[in-house]
Amino acid sequence: MKFKVFLLDVDGVMTTGQFFYTSEGKIMKVFGPDDRDALLLLKKHLAIRFVSADKNGFEISKRRIVNDLKYQLDLVSGNNRINWIKDQYDPKDVIYMGDGIFDHYIFDEVGYSIAPANSIASAKQHASFVTERSGGDRAVAEACLHIINKFSLS
Amino acid sequence: MKFKVFLLDVDGVMTTGQFFYTSEGKIMKVFGPDDRDALLLLKKHLAIRFVSADKNGFEISKRRIVNDLKYQLDLVSGNNRINWIKDQYDPKDVIYMGDGIFDHYIFDEVGYSIAPANSIASAKQHASFVTERSGGDRAVAEACLHIINKFSLS
Amino acid sequence: MKFKVFLLDVDGVMTTGQFFYTSEGKIMKVFGPDDRDALLLLKKHLAIRFVSADKNGFEISKRRIVNDLKYQLDLVSGNNRINWIKDQYDPKDVIYMGDGIFDHYIFDEVGYSIAPANSIASAKQHASFVTERSGGDRAVAEACLHIINKFSLS
Amino acid sequence: MKFKVFLLDVDGVMTTGQFFYTSEGKIMKVFGPDDRDALLLLKKHLAIRFVSADKNGFEISKRRIVNDLKYQLDLVSGNNRINWIKDQYDPKDVIYMGDGIFDHYIFDEVGYSIAPANSIASAKQHASFVTERSGGDRAVAEACLHIINKFSLS
Repeated sequence: MKFKVFLLDVDGVMTTGQFFYTSEGKIMKVFGPDDRDALLLLKKHLAIRFVSADKNGFEISKRRIVNDLKYQLDLVSGNNRINWIKDQYDPKDVIYMGDGIFDHYIFDEVGYSIAPANSIASAKQHASFVTERSGGDRAVAEACLHIINKFSLS
Repeated sequence: MKFKVFLLDVDGVMTTGQFFYTSEGKIMKVFGPDDRDALLLLKKHLAIRFVSADKNGFEISKRRIVNDLKYQLDLVSGNNRINWIKDQYDPKDVIYMGDGIFDHYIFDEVGYSIAPANSIASAKQHASFVTERSGGDRAVAEACLHIINKFSLS
Repeated sequence: MKFKVFLLDVDGVMTTGQFFYTSEGKIMKVFGPDDRDALLLLKKHLAIRFVSADKNGFEISKRRIVNDLKYQLDLVSGNNRINWIKDQYDPKDVIYMGDGIFDHYIFDEVGYSIAPANSIASAKQHASFVTERSGGDRAVAEACLHIINKFSLS
Repeated sequence: MKFKVFLLDVDGVMTTGQFFYTSEGKIMKVFGPDDRDALLLLKKHLAIRFVSADKNGFEISKRRIVNDLKYQLDLVSGNNRINWIKDQYDPKDVIYMGDGIFDHYIFDEVGYSIAPANSIASAKQHASFVTERSGGDRAVAEACLHIINKFSLS
């Protein structure tokens, strides 16, 4: 396997990107089906890690990603993310999946990049691969199966 | 009637497939209209049962399927499901409806298979019938009316 | 004005049709924008009333329709609904808006019928008018403006 | 910069327009990704303010707009809004973004108007620009990038 890690953003990738607010603040996020099972298939071949820039909603993301799915999740802001990646990896060893306004900068430096269908236009323009499904609606499951197939991991 | 049971997955079939998380964990699922009424029409002709692989969210599914709709619901993992079916039925006697990453294996063995519009690609490719509507948006109602019409049950 | 009342179903018409469940049961429904304001415009010309068949979720519907919007809301089951209408009105005096599995029977008897875009296929086939918008996404606002324009009420 | 302020409606622009009801009333709204980051980019060039007509849900909107995003938010009814604007600005100095039934009256008077994809038909017909994305799904992010590009602010 030529890559060392599959690094995924959480909001808009594992979730719909939506933030549910009451008068008390941000309280819910929406995750979807099959992403968990597809990540288990990919995990046999590739390290899997998550990053999130959402400080307010970090405990919600942690509950799903860390407690339930048992992956590492780091709080890393959008504009600091490419440096954070370079501190730990050769960017060419990284497959990165993101949907947001600053993700195209990361896409231009990593080895392979994936944007879900619901991504902002710039992310879709710069991604190596755009999934047909959206975040929280099997985008990650599709990305995992795409990686397994594309890089002949099965 | 040539079939003995209509067996349905819950998440993504009766629900949108979405899992609503707070920092306390998985707390909500979304069910939709007309599925309850269409199942009541089909129930006159065919046994109806549900299975779910979602252990964390089982109490939520139970509240809707068992307490409110009064159907049997069993916790059966995705990769164990075809064996669980074979232990109880001749698979050819089963109409199965599912949307997930492992459901195409089941579709290839049962008598008739149905996938909602929101299913993963492999499920839609292997299904006998794909509904126009998605889970939690009348996919099950459409499936029930399709079965009644296709197998002349009315 | 040739009609006496605009009678609307709640779930799938004023809401998205979705039922949000926790392990404690049905707890939330989703209403949308502009329906309230458009009903206020129509109210100058036509009586407005609501019916719902959802017993479990009646308190949620009541909170929006009765407490917040100040309209009358009656609990009337789907298969009893046409008789309930006939007990109180000449059906030809009624404009009825619904989205569900039994609504086409009502559509065939009332003076004018409206189905939101998200309705079950049979409702859309039998309706006098199908809105471009879905329930909980301005279907009722569009229906009100359509009635005002179609029957020259402005 | 020829404009003095970017004034945005909240519901249906920053949110999906949906109101989540329990039997206790309106309790949740849904905000989306990238709007916060794109507003930070635009803020360097243009004052940003919000208005909302939603009295019942004002505390929810305030939690996101005022507490979390640190913008000014005023409660201004739909039919009073154009006068409220005129009391404080020359309308030609205002870029206004809205999605609702009365917003086309405002669009006809302000300097530049933007409607999200999910807007009511009349708003989309009268807007200077209609975003491809909907409220709560990056409509505001797209609007901010459009303003920066259209009026050469970067």
